Amino acid sequence: MSVYLDYNATTPLDERVLSAMLPYLSARYGNASSRHEPGRVARRAVELAREQVAVAVGAHPTEVVFTSGGSEANNLFLQGVAATFSTAGTVAFGAIEHPCVLNAARQLTRRGWRLAELPADAEGRITLAGVDAVLSAAKKPELWSLMLANNETGVLQEVESIAARVGAEGHSGYWFHTDAVQAFGKIPVDFRRLNQAGVHALTLSAHKIYGPKGAAALIFDKHLDLMPLIAGGGQEGGLRSGTENVAAIVGFGAAATLVSEHLAHLPARLQAMRERLEAGARDLGATLFGANAARLPNTSYFAFAGIEGDTLLSRLDRAGFAVASGSACSSANPDPSHVLLAMGVPPNLARGALRVSLGKETTPAQIDDFLRALKTALSDLQKLTALQS
Amino acid sequence: MSVYLDYNATTPLDERVLSAMLPYLSARYGNASSRHEPGRVARRAVELAREQVAVAVGAHPTEVVFTSGGSEANNLFLQGVAATFSTAGTVAFGAIEHPCVLNAARQLTRRGWRLAELPADAEGRITLAGVDAVLSAAKKPELWSLMLANNETGVLQEVESIAARVGAEGHSGYWFHTDAVQAFGKIPVDFRRLNQAGVHALTLSAHKIYGPKGAAALIFDKHLDLMPLIAGGGQEGGLRSGTENVAAIVGFGAAATLVSEHLAHLPARLQAMRERLEAGARDLGATLFGANAARLPNTSYFAFAGIEGDTLLSRLDRAGFAVASGSACSSANPDPSHVLLAMGVPPNLARGALRVSLGKETTPAQIDDFLRALKTALSDLQKLTALQS
Repeated sequence: MSVYLDYNATTPLDERVLSAMLPYLSARYGNASSRHEPGRVARRAVELAREQVAVAVGAHPTEVVFTSGGSEANNLFLQGVAATFSTAGTVAFGAIEHPCVLNAARQLTRRGWRLAELPADAEGRITLAGVDAVLSAAKKPELWSLMLANNETGVLQEVESIAARVGAEGHSGYWFHTDAVQAFGKIPVDFRRLNQAGVHALTLSAHKIYGPKGAAALIFDKHLDLMPLIAGGGQEGGLRSGTENVAAIVGFGAAATLVSEHLAHLPARLQAMRERLEAGARDLGATLFGANAARLPNTSYFAFAGIEGDTLLSRLDRAGFAVASGSACSSANPDPSHVLLAMGVPPNLARGALRVSLGKETTPAQIDDFLRALKTALSDLQKLTALQS
Repeated sequence: MSVYLDYNATTPLDERVLSAMLPYLSARYGNASSRHEPGRVARRAVELAREQVAVAVGAHPTEVVFTSGGSEANNLFLQGVAATFSTAGTVAFGAIEHPCVLNAARQLTRRGWRLAELPADAEGRITLAGVDAVLSAAKKPELWSLMLANNETGVLQEVESIAARVGAEGHSGYWFHTDAVQAFGKIPVDFRRLNQAGVHALTLSAHKIYGPKGAAALIFDKHLDLMPLIAGGGQEGGLRSGTENVAAIVGFGAAATLVSEHLAHLPARLQAMRERLEAGARDLGATLFGANAARLPNTSYFAFAGIEGDTLLSRLDRAGFAVASGSACSSANPDPSHVLLAMGVPPNLARGALRVSLGKETTPAQIDDFLRALKTALSDLQKLTALQS
């Protein structure tokens, strides 16, 4: 088994999460919409999980709609809220958003919606100046989506300040969403506080917090008008039809209960290991991305001039280290990261990007082993390059 | 544990399916879109499952797009194909379709689409006469969706004949879909044959075939033009973004490999038990629905005059028998079944409907026990009714 340093792509299931799920993969197999005892057993499990997820982010259970994943939840917000407008409007979003926000926004242009992309600074932060520029336009956006923490750089975004700015500007009839998929479990996420600052909805995902793939949620202000993305039997208060994935939802709830424990212990430990990693990477000549901004404690993103990130990733993979060269979702895409390009990183350097994301099984010894493997890989690649030139 | 007689709502996981899934809920937790070894392990598992599902219905792996459930797959067809038309058209569907087809079609009316509901006969079969009536209209439907077997009655639909009729009528530019969620695993389902008859897409779901909740598929003719419902990182050939639910997809593949085994042994056994059940129910005064039509071998749907189905369901539940009073998905809805109303069943009798659906753990002894419990429940309820009148 390789040394896994790609926790932002996905995390292993916590064994307590798996234990919570297993009964719903065997004896407790009822359909949560059935009215008999096996159905009620499943329903109670889903509703307990809803409470657990709500508690973890300071929301009310009625504010939680379960979906099959973060991408679906982000699409549910953008497409589902856009569908409630009788005329097309404008959707504002960060230039560094996850592809599921960018592409859901782009799909809205087919229905006449206009796009307002908010620029990032060199450290990967969406700027208030960019927000002000959008707000000074004649047509102010009806939809906003801005992530809490970037999946590639880990850079934290000033979502509260920006939401407050949009609110203070005085126009009504807009809805503000934040994608909290990467932030949740790594830094405190408080929906009540965000909601008071003017955020109406946020997205969470189970498989980034040691829970299972297949469960996520849109947390939403009950004033939000929302059309379902998946119409049907009327599950999830009519907002998301389809038989509930009970085991995955139970696992999401169980993983949510572990978040406070993780937040109490993990960040300091992960940050110490990341500093060790980044000191070593700098010694090897790395250019670090977003390192001067407030970041998630577990994420490091860097490049070496003249070295392809994909090539480096492959070498490290063969040496037994699992890292990312960009966000996993766009790995099929050979273009340099849109996040780095938005930060003004030259395409050649951006193509060299390597993301290392740490998690609770990461040890200082693994960091040292990784740095040794990185040194060897770089040295081999530099020799190859020298031979070829 | 109650006696479970609601296999059309959901099925228990086959233990071989669970065994196949477990590694992907522990050591093999990689993201299938990651390019390192843990990612490739997950990718190989997803692609093996795609082959297994394809083989089970005579399709090619490239014709399989995985979704989180049957409702999503049905919505993907209806919304995803409708989105490729530059002007709104007409969508034709059976009056007895699952709510996720009916409501997805209704959502299209918000974009100007017209609805053509195909009527059912008294046995619950969509009629060729109704299809001909729709085809004789000036504006012929661009989208068709007709289920292979009804979830409530189990009645089989003449999908091949109807698709061939629509095709023979000579108009081009339409797409024909069938919801095979209830048929798959209970009768042979052959996509190649259906495709030759003019069916372009079909929906399958894992949790109806002893697989997990959270995985399903749209099988589609590669000529079909389709927009994704969930936009994002471009997974599933760009047709369904979001981190793959690897464990559930693996379970779906494993369950699909069991279908041929189930088809070889189960139907005759289930049908014999159903005949025993229906003979007993008739003796107690039941009116059977769809009993003169070709039906799935496991499904029985009946009512007793003057008895509420929900009340009967509750009594049977307390006695330890899990059955349905309608489709589980619409259990929150107190209206009588739209399927029975479409068949011309009087609302009062429809409100009494009880669905009993058998599966591979069902035994003749359970059927006898159920009939005894049914007799007691009916007798108690008839006494109560006599006292109240």
